[in-house]
Amino acid sequence: MTRTPRTLFALAAGTTRTAGIDGISAAGADPALLSHTPSADAEIFEYGHPVRSPVVPVSPTGCPTPAVVTRAVRDCLGFDSIVVDAGLAEPTGAPTVDVDAAPGADVREAVAVADAERTFANARRLGTELPVDRLVLGETIPGGTTTAMGVLAALGERREVSSSLPENPLALKRDVVRAGLEASGLDPGGLAGQPTEAVRRMGDPVLATLSGLAVGALEADTDVVLAGGTQLAAVAALVRHAGRNDSLALATTSFVADDESAGIRDLAADLALDLTVTDPGFEANESHPAMAAYRAGEAKEGVGMGGALALADEAGVEMAAVRDALVSVYDRVTETAEEPR
Amino acid sequence: MTRTPRTLFALAAGTTRTAGIDGISAAGADPALLSHTPSADAEIFEYGHPVRSPVVPVSPTGCPTPAVVTRAVRDCLGFDSIVVDAGLAEPTGAPTVDVDAAPGADVREAVAVADAERTFANARRLGTELPVDRLVLGETIPGGTTTAMGVLAALGERREVSSSLPENPLALKRDVVRAGLEASGLDPGGLAGQPTEAVRRMGDPVLATLSGLAVGALEADTDVVLAGGTQLAAVAALVRHAGRNDSLALATTSFVADDESAGIRDLAADLALDLTVTDPGFEANESHPAMAAYRAGEAKEGVGMGGALALADEAGVEMAAVRDALVSVYDRVTETAEEPR
Repeated sequence: MTRTPRTLFALAAGTTRTAGIDGISAAGADPALLSHTPSADAEIFEYGHPVRSPVVPVSPTGCPTPAVVTRAVRDCLGFDSIVVDAGLAEPTGAPTVDVDAAPGADVREAVAVADAERTFANARRLGTELPVDRLVLGETIPGGTTTAMGVLAALGERREVSSSLPENPLALKRDVVRAGLEASGLDPGGLAGQPTEAVRRMGDPVLATLSGLAVGALEADTDVVLAGGTQLAAVAALVRHAGRNDSLALATTSFVADDESAGIRDLAADLALDLTVTDPGFEANESHPAMAAYRAGEAKEGVGMGGALALADEAGVEMAAVRDALVSVYDRVTETAEEPR
Repeated sequence: MTRTPRTLFALAAGTTRTAGIDGISAAGADPALLSHTPSADAEIFEYGHPVRSPVVPVSPTGCPTPAVVTRAVRDCLGFDSIVVDAGLAEPTGAPTVDVDAAPGADVREAVAVADAERTFANARRLGTELPVDRLVLGETIPGGTTTAMGVLAALGERREVSSSLPENPLALKRDVVRAGLEASGLDPGGLAGQPTEAVRRMGDPVLATLSGLAVGALEADTDVVLAGGTQLAAVAALVRHAGRNDSLALATTSFVADDESAGIRDLAADLALDLTVTDPGFEANESHPAMAAYRAGEAKEGVGMGGALALADEAGVEMAAVRDALVSVYDRVTETAEEPR
């Protein structure tokens, strides 16, 4: 009996205190509510709107979380999924797989992810055991592009990273990473070939989880699609520094690919990644507040948005259908936000 | 815009030390592996075969867990689902929603579920918040018919219960429940109108979780289908004793309905439940080991099997298609069992 190849979309949701540094993240209008963002994203991803979380993640200017785009694709297409608790700090109503991850510390401390080794090992075992043919990996972690830069620096890779803000605060991120390297007693490239240690010193628990899942899946001959921008490129770097030279896909959005500060094409070339860029065609619905915000450079990527768009494209779902679904998800999510909870 | 009514299948998976009493449960051939059964069931339910769990749950005579039937329906039909961690004792690779439940104690102790109140409250909130139109509730907990009998006794309801064994060890269960009532200082009916206390004294964490989910869902005007046999009837009793008189469906298998020791029809009538009985027609494939075992009276129900069959029937899926899918799931699951893990 021939079997349909099975695809599983795994979202790693976690937190790092790095997100609390002023000016680092747009993932949540109110800094006090930032730590709820990944818990809410997991709920939108799984259910279509927040369940337990008290907030709908929006940027300071009102741009909704990319979870609404990924969910819109899911409403069109349907796909199997899991959420992995990669260090959530707040409760979520979404079902999560446990890999014993804890919230990450501020990357400016000597140790950013105390449990990196254990989380990596647990995620690697899970990646080996998942009974699928293709694993699509996405992330939600506020502050994650800064820790991605930290890991790229520790590994000695090119360290341009994207941002959820229209103006990428690259100078601030560089300062933070410099402080982190110093606190860790590291020079750039000082942890080349030591991916878990690079995460422990300079990363976040989502990077530990995703690199573990990717390495485990590759060991089990499962195809891996890294669904995201520079954070997922950092995962690719960790996989390469773990000695895996398998073919590896990176599926991101046109918003990241068009962001010159992010240098995603160069990073993908350095790491021998098969890059797919999908443009959801938001210019066709420019009057919609969510699509206008993405067109203005907000959010750009996250919650596996680029990978979800690529899955839609692969399945022959028109981007116009995705945009229609996005309008519905946006209405549902913002309606939730206005109800008393 | 009109919306398709959304159905969500929620499986509560937990443990009680009551299952360790000699002769009580068939859910797992090896008593030492019994505590893995709900973790493995959750994996089969979510992925189609065990992932992290070291065992495939089979009865002493080789009858596979009803999770394979529910999964077979899922392979035919597709439905949204969550697993709720209702006191798992072993790790599971399935994603789970956390309601802060812990494994239950032996029902012969004074307190069987120390955290019944908190688990009920958390599950009730989750039940209120799940954004669905219909919630289908199933269970996996070895020893669960004995704790169901305990709760029915404490509430003063009819206390015939089903069994996963062909010969229902009713005398043993009655002795256990009598010892439990005595240890709790209770007469039968002593906790009528006090459902959470009845669970705390005489139940298990799955009953706390499912009664909370059901009450919360009803409060939010969500339809509730109790997918199972006497354990789910005990959940219905808890809902009634919590003062909810809403219409409430119980969907079970012909194997439970045909079990005279279980008295499911009388229990359903007592509790004003809308009873659906679905016969998967296993006599058509009598040479298959799994279907032959169910025909011989093993397992009978569990992991929402009766509710899953009812969903298939409602969707116009032929039972012949379900049986074909069952053969595939059985092969996949037993193949897993033979691989070194």
